[in-house]
Amino acid sequence: MQFRRDPEPTADTPLRPGRRRDPAVDEAVKGVVLELLAERGWDGVSMDAVAARARVGKASIYRRWSSRVQMVAETIGELNSGEVTVPDTGSLRGDLVEVVGAMVATLRGPLGDASRAVIGVLAHEPDLATAFREGSLGVWRDAFVAVLGAAVARGEVDPARLGTAASEAGPAVVMQRWLLLGRPLDDELTRSVVDDVMLPLLTPR
Amino acid sequence: MQFRRDPEPTADTPLRPGRRRDPAVDEAVKGVVLELLAERGWDGVSMDAVAARARVGKASIYRRWSSRVQMVAETIGELNSGEVTVPDTGSLRGDLVEVVGAMVATLRGPLGDASRAVIGVLAHEPDLATAFREGSLGVWRDAFVAVLGAAVARGEVDPARLGTAASEAGPAVVMQRWLLLGRPLDDELTRSVVDDVMLPLLTPR
Repeated sequence: MQFRRDPEPTADTPLRPGRRRDPAVDEAVKGVVLELLAERGWDGVSMDAVAARARVGKASIYRRWSSRVQMVAETIGELNSGEVTVPDTGSLRGDLVEVVGAMVATLRGPLGDASRAVIGVLAHEPDLATAFREGSLGVWRDAFVAVLGAAVARGEVDPARLGTAASEAGPAVVMQRWLLLGRPLDDELTRSVVDDVMLPLLTPR
Repeated sequence: MQFRRDPEPTADTPLRPGRRRDPAVDEAVKGVVLELLAERGWDGVSMDAVAARARVGKASIYRRWSSRVQMVAETIGELNSGEVTVPDTGSLRGDLVEVVGAMVATLRGPLGDASRAVIGVLAHEPDLATAFREGSLGVWRDAFVAVLGAAVARGEVDPARLGTAASEAGPAVVMQRWLLLGRPLDDELTRSVVDDVMLPLLTPR
């Protein structure tokens, strides 16, 4: 016979009776997932490491997510949602500087480090790929769509250019610097992406 | 006392006396590293897995590389070197279609899958990052530099645009599709990158 052990003191112990999910535990776990991704990369995010740092029992984590991929996918899917509001400066250039600037600032911080850690895994984990594309990338895509839509309505942007490679080029330069080139993500990059790439490609000649 | 075992039959057994590096073993190991990166991602490349699939003793691998990072770095650093020759079609558009097309074709194949697996690791492994940027990315960068240099000499490209974000934009669209968007890398992408992004940004208005 085994002695019944008292439950370990964990962040969601107070809620044990109903086994409802405690939002505070969800937030603690997701925060730790981002920290570990940023500090140690994909290899560093194990259920053990997350449980230890979040001071949450592994059973609590497994009640929420069946695997580390599901846990990371939900975390990544909610990423960036607080990082951008659609600007309305009245001009295409003003709006683009706001959105590109917010993207550059986010990518050079801890959220950028965490996101980078999952890129190499996307091809092997379809659920993670969907969460990443619809969630954390989708936030920026939606902001650009809104800004460009307003500019089309003002006659500043040629609608024929939307949906072509031309409309992908500005953000792509930022992503390439962030993921591949190891070059600075600074204000000069924002200015150059807007003035040297996006405005020449999207506005009528 | 332990019995001395005969060496395991490995690809470099014949060279044992001098302990010189057998190029055939190097090639076998590097080929397996690329396979495992493409199939299983960064997590799948362990010294054990490489030794088993390459049918090489682990001691042989450790004589060559002190760690899996060094092993992958040398493999990645030599990547793509056979994938592109600098074209000379006589026109900027013709040359760009050749180089962008070669890049697109390479990235959608097994070398692209292998490269993608290391992206998330670059921030944590400086030696791997250097090998990747100088080696496998450098092959494409050098090809673009040569093609654009010839076009400047012919008066087709405005030299003021080189070195700005404008000169990064075409390849960046390809890289963004490859790494982030999960959209097809096809001939239409090559055409659009050349005609909708690179030529408008690089040639005088």
